[in-house]
Amino acid sequence: MEYKKGLEGVIAAETQIGLVDGTLGHLIYRGHWAKELALSYSFEEVAYFIWNGEFPTEGELVTFKEQMTSYRELPSYIKTILDTLPNEMDVMSTMRTAISALGTPAFAWPPTIDQAMHVTALLPSIIAYKYQKNQGATFIEPNPQLDHVANYIYMIKGQLPSEVEIKALTAYLILTIEHGMNASTFASRVVVSTESEMISGVCAAIGSMKGPLHGGAPSEVIEMIDEIGTIDNIEPWIRNKLEKGEKLMGFGHRVYKTRDPRSEALKVVSKDLAQESDWFNLITQMEQTAIDLLEEYKPGRKLYTNVEFFAAAVLKGLDIPKELFTPTFTSSRIIGWTAHILEQSQDNRIFRPQSSYTGQMPEQAAKF
Amino acid sequence: MEYKKGLEGVIAAETQIGLVDGTLGHLIYRGHWAKELALSYSFEEVAYFIWNGEFPTEGELVTFKEQMTSYRELPSYIKTILDTLPNEMDVMSTMRTAISALGTPAFAWPPTIDQAMHVTALLPSIIAYKYQKNQGATFIEPNPQLDHVANYIYMIKGQLPSEVEIKALTAYLILTIEHGMNASTFASRVVVSTESEMISGVCAAIGSMKGPLHGGAPSEVIEMIDEIGTIDNIEPWIRNKLEKGEKLMGFGHRVYKTRDPRSEALKVVSKDLAQESDWFNLITQMEQTAIDLLEEYKPGRKLYTNVEFFAAAVLKGLDIPKELFTPTFTSSRIIGWTAHILEQSQDNRIFRPQSSYTGQMPEQAAKF
Repeated sequence: MEYKKGLEGVIAAETQIGLVDGTLGHLIYRGHWAKELALSYSFEEVAYFIWNGEFPTEGELVTFKEQMTSYRELPSYIKTILDTLPNEMDVMSTMRTAISALGTPAFAWPPTIDQAMHVTALLPSIIAYKYQKNQGATFIEPNPQLDHVANYIYMIKGQLPSEVEIKALTAYLILTIEHGMNASTFASRVVVSTESEMISGVCAAIGSMKGPLHGGAPSEVIEMIDEIGTIDNIEPWIRNKLEKGEKLMGFGHRVYKTRDPRSEALKVVSKDLAQESDWFNLITQMEQTAIDLLEEYKPGRKLYTNVEFFAAAVLKGLDIPKELFTPTFTSSRIIGWTAHILEQSQDNRIFRPQSSYTGQMPEQAAKF
Repeated sequence: MEYKKGLEGVIAAETQIGLVDGTLGHLIYRGHWAKELALSYSFEEVAYFIWNGEFPTEGELVTFKEQMTSYRELPSYIKTILDTLPNEMDVMSTMRTAISALGTPAFAWPPTIDQAMHVTALLPSIIAYKYQKNQGATFIEPNPQLDHVANYIYMIKGQLPSEVEIKALTAYLILTIEHGMNASTFASRVVVSTESEMISGVCAAIGSMKGPLHGGAPSEVIEMIDEIGTIDNIEPWIRNKLEKGEKLMGFGHRVYKTRDPRSEALKVVSKDLAQESDWFNLITQMEQTAIDLLEEYKPGRKLYTNVEFFAAAVLKGLDIPKELFTPTFTSSRIIGWTAHILEQSQDNRIFRPQSSYTGQMPEQAAKF
């Protein structure tokens, strides 16, 4: 069998959770258009749907939200561990460690939807605890009156968010739940294929997401736009970048060869969020100029805005600090990971591929 | 492309580290027979060789051992975390959490041999700390006068080991350093292919090793042999098991279709370890009877003793408690993982395979 570096083009799993069609610009979650779910459903409704394969009734949704709310509480020993970890540890490593520390017999194999709810509900509290610690501030305990998304903003910013803010972050989070066999999702399936528990799979996935080739670019978009600064500077700045052969952050994607469907939906909510703001004018102008110039410098390559471009717009519009961009992405992708972990466990076979040995052979036969 | 469940037969990486040839019964580390390395070299020499690709000079070995010894010391904040983790947490989850807690900027990408030495040297201290805590005993601080293997036995048992004991455990540890694209090694390469740091890769690997389909069976061999109890009981016990169609622990391997080379070397050292003991007589008698009866009940299947059978013999001969079998295995395999992580980083491409969508399609075209 031919060796495909990075397993490019190799089918590693069958899944009913999501379909990414980069040529058509389609992103489908269990038979629904992700971009439509993002604009019309609550975070809890979509989480329930991804895990259960059907939407909740009104009563089921109430029970589900109550359960999620109860799981937000940080156990006191996890707080002690968060207090003990060195301040210079980054947020993603802190999340990986705190989730790993949950790995008691309560989370034993086999994975369950209840376990998935627990880690998903708890992760924003871990992020917020570490963030407030970095600020030298006191942790803002989760507010049981608020739904998942509103509570996340509240724990970070300390104030109740507006409906527009909740809608924008909800859309961002729903759009980033699931995206095929990316490295983190794949790693989580490999790990639990040994019948290791969900916690091990999620730790592996967080560790993958931490890598800049996977989860690390949205803050670079902000840095780029900050560097451009004004509308007049857009065209010369981009031309200079492209003439030097440098990459433009937020444009082009390994999978999408057309407009990224996630960008389309995020453009809608970021417009509501940043109405008449200079920031939004700058990014929409920047988007159009960049697409035109990319076509001029790299004709036929079809480089469009990717999810990171408008993700940056939404997260900046919400005043989410840059160091929380990848953690916030992680707080939604954990739904996809746990759904894949559940799916893997239901029809499991251990991952045990081959390697091709390119090293030396022994000079002599074995002595025994 | 055809879908191979568990990626069976698919080449996922090129490597110069090791070759497993199950048909010929070969296990080669960088051009050397693993079973010869296991009986003639020290643990430190082989670790150095696996990471550096060449054996150390006398002077290099001295420096290397000094560095490894200094890295055994548990940082005080890691001790606090180990004290804080719930007692009911298993040893592997504890190891995963403590290693994750090392993820400060000192371990940032790219991975280095120095980082590999650090996690490898520290892991036995983590295991011993947790083990002593489970016993309600005080941690026995590492002894800088002892080499890696002797110090490991010392921290667990609290007494200086004999040369025969050191030789036996050294052989076991060297033989389990590396074994191709098993799930844990593969997971570690997937995770670091995102340019995430070595710590993330090792956490994923520990999480994989924790799964009973991967790292979990040696203690079951002991339980089986304890159940058999006497030489007279061997044949009726095995016949009864095989007639019920049940699996015999410690026999047969997904890869090896002949004698497992690791078993051959372990048989040598376990004999020295258990000279004239009833236990060793029982297991050698059991091995022969089992191979004969497996041929009788499953003719042509060529089911031989696998590494777990004689691993159990060695670990029991050393009085290593059962709950430390998989952790001890992990303490050597971490050398293989870190070598693969280093290799992956040197010629990296992110793992991004495909999935095959078997779910529903949307009933209607997207609204926007």
